[in-house]
Amino acid sequence: MKTGSSFLTHVRLNDSFWNPIRETVRQTGIPYQWKALNDQLPDTEPSGCMRNFRIAAGREQGAHAGCVFQDSDIGKWLEGAAYTLRWHPDPALEEIMDGAIEEIVAAQQPDGYLDTYYIINGLDRRWTNLKDHHELYCAGHLLEGAVAYYEATGKRRLLDAMIRFVDHIDSVLGPEEGKLHGYPGHPEIELALMRLYRVTGDPKHLRLASYFIDQRGRQPLFFREEEIRHGVADIDRKSLFRYRYYQAGKPVREQEDAEGHAVRALYLYAGMADVARETGDESLFRACRRLWESAVRRRMYITGGVGSSEYGESFTFDYDLPNDTVYAETCASIALVFFARRMLEMDPRGEYADVMERCLYNGILSGMQLDGTRFFYVNPLEVLPEACEMDERKRHVRPERQGWFACACCPPNLNRLVASLEDYMISLRGQEVFIHLFLGGEAEFETESAAAPEAPKTTVQLQIRSDYPRDGKIVLTLRLPEPARFCLRPRIPGWCASFAVRINGQAVSAGPEEGYLRLDREWRDGDTVELNLDMPVRLVQASPRIPEDAGKVAVARGPLVYCLEEADNGKRLHLLRIGKTAAADFAAAWKPDKLKGITELTCPGIRESEEGWEDTLYSASLPIRETETRLTFIPYYAWANRGLGEMRVWVRR
Amino acid sequence: MKTGSSFLTHVRLNDSFWNPIRETVRQTGIPYQWKALNDQLPDTEPSGCMRNFRIAAGREQGAHAGCVFQDSDIGKWLEGAAYTLRWHPDPALEEIMDGAIEEIVAAQQPDGYLDTYYIINGLDRRWTNLKDHHELYCAGHLLEGAVAYYEATGKRRLLDAMIRFVDHIDSVLGPEEGKLHGYPGHPEIELALMRLYRVTGDPKHLRLASYFIDQRGRQPLFFREEEIRHGVADIDRKSLFRYRYYQAGKPVREQEDAEGHAVRALYLYAGMADVARETGDESLFRACRRLWESAVRRRMYITGGVGSSEYGESFTFDYDLPNDTVYAETCASIALVFFARRMLEMDPRGEYADVMERCLYNGILSGMQLDGTRFFYVNPLEVLPEACEMDERKRHVRPERQGWFACACCPPNLNRLVASLEDYMISLRGQEVFIHLFLGGEAEFETESAAAPEAPKTTVQLQIRSDYPRDGKIVLTLRLPEPARFCLRPRIPGWCASFAVRINGQAVSAGPEEGYLRLDREWRDGDTVELNLDMPVRLVQASPRIPEDAGKVAVARGPLVYCLEEADNGKRLHLLRIGKTAAADFAAAWKPDKLKGITELTCPGIRESEEGWEDTLYSASLPIRETETRLTFIPYYAWANRGLGEMRVWVRR
Repeated sequence: MKTGSSFLTHVRLNDSFWNPIRETVRQTGIPYQWKALNDQLPDTEPSGCMRNFRIAAGREQGAHAGCVFQDSDIGKWLEGAAYTLRWHPDPALEEIMDGAIEEIVAAQQPDGYLDTYYIINGLDRRWTNLKDHHELYCAGHLLEGAVAYYEATGKRRLLDAMIRFVDHIDSVLGPEEGKLHGYPGHPEIELALMRLYRVTGDPKHLRLASYFIDQRGRQPLFFREEEIRHGVADIDRKSLFRYRYYQAGKPVREQEDAEGHAVRALYLYAGMADVARETGDESLFRACRRLWESAVRRRMYITGGVGSSEYGESFTFDYDLPNDTVYAETCASIALVFFARRMLEMDPRGEYADVMERCLYNGILSGMQLDGTRFFYVNPLEVLPEACEMDERKRHVRPERQGWFACACCPPNLNRLVASLEDYMISLRGQEVFIHLFLGGEAEFETESAAAPEAPKTTVQLQIRSDYPRDGKIVLTLRLPEPARFCLRPRIPGWCASFAVRINGQAVSAGPEEGYLRLDREWRDGDTVELNLDMPVRLVQASPRIPEDAGKVAVARGPLVYCLEEADNGKRLHLLRIGKTAAADFAAAWKPDKLKGITELTCPGIRESEEGWEDTLYSASLPIRETETRLTFIPYYAWANRGLGEMRVWVRR
Repeated sequence: MKTGSSFLTHVRLNDSFWNPIRETVRQTGIPYQWKALNDQLPDTEPSGCMRNFRIAAGREQGAHAGCVFQDSDIGKWLEGAAYTLRWHPDPALEEIMDGAIEEIVAAQQPDGYLDTYYIINGLDRRWTNLKDHHELYCAGHLLEGAVAYYEATGKRRLLDAMIRFVDHIDSVLGPEEGKLHGYPGHPEIELALMRLYRVTGDPKHLRLASYFIDQRGRQPLFFREEEIRHGVADIDRKSLFRYRYYQAGKPVREQEDAEGHAVRALYLYAGMADVARETGDESLFRACRRLWESAVRRRMYITGGVGSSEYGESFTFDYDLPNDTVYAETCASIALVFFARRMLEMDPRGEYADVMERCLYNGILSGMQLDGTRFFYVNPLEVLPEACEMDERKRHVRPERQGWFACACCPPNLNRLVASLEDYMISLRGQEVFIHLFLGGEAEFETESAAAPEAPKTTVQLQIRSDYPRDGKIVLTLRLPEPARFCLRPRIPGWCASFAVRINGQAVSAGPEEGYLRLDREWRDGDTVELNLDMPVRLVQASPRIPEDAGKVAVARGPLVYCLEEADNGKRLHLLRIGKTAAADFAAAWKPDKLKGITELTCPGIRESEEGWEDTLYSASLPIRETETRLTFIPYYAWANRGLGEMRVWVRR
């Protein structure tokens, strides 16, 4: 299908599952986090974020507060808030945002520089520690916020300021003699520059993103040279990861495995995918593909969590996926979605959307309390609250969500993803209309005829109705003024073993190709496609290579991974076994009042008893008695909303 | 049995299992470690231990080297070497020891003080940091070395010097006004003072030991006052354990759980038991008993390892016994044996000896390579070598023994225990002769008649012959000049479910009381007792309260815990299952040439296959294929003697 092309004009989400969550983010999360950034939350540590800008602008006195990357919080907040304006115009919010933007811009230096840490602490030291001081990272987030706000409102105030900052960055960093041959310690600006490039079309923006990616990890290593300038000993000698923590151990095209700090890695890969798509760079695409496979085929939790270790918030090694000392930072799964969407744009395969969906409905959504005011940084798959207090190896795992964090990256990252979910739903490629996520709503696109490309384009409205993930029935309705030929390509999720398709009520036989159906025909106004994805309970096994999950199963239904919680099943969840219970033995029941509405799963199970073992640690003769019991599973994302208690995803057979 | 008493005059070990190990310690370990203490090992970091004494004596120039507790290494080395002199007189070794003692004594200050760290770094600062600077700990070890050397040789040079040091300590610390009301951050001197007291009978020595124990944890807390004097912030604010790390959170009699640094805790409990026995202090005994139960009934590995966490080398909480991030320091199990023996002296119950035996044959012996030159500090129950490199949570777990350590506590601790094993074998109480460990050898004791206490004592020689732990037949032969009535009390180990006793070939029906048989009769010259402990393979389950061991079994035979090793079973030991194999399905075979002679166990088992899972992490439809295989188990103590590889004690069902 070489000729013919389609353009998405808009997508509007109206989804029974995500609408309430998006409203929580809009009505609660965004105002709550605005207060946090302005030090107005009573029981949490002050952020200092907005105050830093006022101090940098000379409007207030004081020291820089918070992390060296504190500026990024307002960038992410603006971005998330901007997305809500796309689907819920809100002049009062826009006014707050304009005010925030004025405060940010007021701190900008005459040469375009804009980073409160160095403006407050001494501009003479700027650009001296790219490895650890996050100037380019903050720039990236402010840039993403600026682009999103411009796209939502047409207002250029922050965008123009950030373009000036990018010009400044371009004058300091780059391949030319006299410039620093550096790149960010924490990738992010690469993908942000590509978003800017799509708005500006300025080749300088693409060139700078490409430079940061190509220069990374090249010898002589910029980070090492920077250390030498500071008289700092070789990081190689003390770090487990060495420069791989920064994905700078070697040039990105030579990297084989997803390594080091997981968020850094995945932001980098997302930026690499952006550049590869824009430039058609095959070797860069192949690197992306290799790193994708490393991350999701050997180093990802069933929840879509990535980064197995708190040490360096990092990837570790293949199949090392401990459930209880896990890291699986919310931001890392969000970054994996960013990466997946970009891969999907180049290479439409269901596996990318499968991972997006896995992350969204599980390891990302778990990051937020149902009321939108508390957050997980770490998303464990197994929790014993006592161990989180008493075992140093698990102290980073919190058994309850927190109000705010000193490093507050996750909450605004959640906002911006949830508030822009429609961007992940559908994409067009030639005359193929890919439906990646089954979100209720509608999309509008223009399509031209492959047979008669000179003919005027047809505007097509695609309505999607579903109760997903509560059930697997998805109804697509097409509205178009005249018949048009194009190819609808709804995804068949990797989890789905059986499905049916009807077009206008007639069963159609179709099998997925690389995860997507191919429904290619001349469509007419009012045509419907009904997709029924069978959504039985599944008992999922992990690869035998993962030691931690050996002999265990996870319960899943549709895109949702389930878990046992103490609130339903009592203490000592490790004593509960599924035994020989089959997937068919589960009962699924919709509980509208439980955890804001869930499909609860129950099944017969076994509880091992501690009886008789009170004073005995080891015995060859004491029996472990078993009693029959009923196990209750809730969706993983909803855990830890009913007070402190144990939780467990992988359940013993 | 109120009247009548017996006195052990000597015990000589001649045991098929331990003799070669003791010879390894004597011929290899002791000379090797002497070189280490004198910085003569080529590939290991210099210890500086003996050099510190020469510097402190003004005989060499230089700075204090190594840890603040470096002096303790020579104390432990002297103690271990002294024990070997008891069973292998060696004038050349004695000469080396005398030379070492001269170097130590030469550093002693006129007022009796003897700690090289402060002598070199400034005497004005001595006794200012009892919490962390180990002066009393080092004194304790030098004292133990002095007592052992005196007992082995009659030479008083070091003993007298140490008595002068104790006098100095007594002048500085104590309840009197003007003295520091302190106690050691690392207990050890308590039990050492009790050993000294048994030699000197000087009540001052008992009083000082009691003071350290009674003062510990009392308010106002000495360690806090010390911190205040140093302007140090409250440790409470940063430490997970707070002062409980030092067993100083509250007075020892109020402590409920074995907490904090495991070696410190168990040295303290051993000292408490010594004082309780000597003084008949019931409340102190009850505290010992409570702490014993906490340590061994809720916080001990099947190998006798204690201390679950590297953080603080510490106990954590009940039933928290992870196999892979474990600490289980060799020294902690040794300290548990010290504590057990002291409890046994007060309260002869088989459970103490069971724990001694569990530690000795498993988690202690594993600390030493079969050739005696390399050591484990941490004794894991599950090892994946890759994880020890790549997972920060497991980097303290070494998959191979090391030549030496910056903190070299474990190797000389092993020496001194192994070289004095005969002290743990047998004890007398009234006319009861308890046989705790089945070590071949002979003991001589004098017994008096209960009926005629005025009659001359009879000298009894008890010969013990056995091939334990290779098999469970133990033959006791009595040699005595005339018939004498006393009660032989051989232990029936907790692991032993079935046994037979014959006296002079005649079956006797006897059941153990608190773990010991009661064979009370008039014995004659040449009488034999043959004990046959059935020693089948056992499949041991852990308490259902231990999450890490759920669904798994450990294989044991006699006192030995077994493990799977990669060398016998290939990689990915987590894929191996015992399945429904019963203990009776195992084959046991003596392999004289394997690992210096072991009883190897094999059984039918299952290997789960990775086939088909190459590119898949999670699946509800992919089967995990199973193939039949044969599993080979070796004694745990012998693991890691055949190169780098996986190891696992707890095997899936």
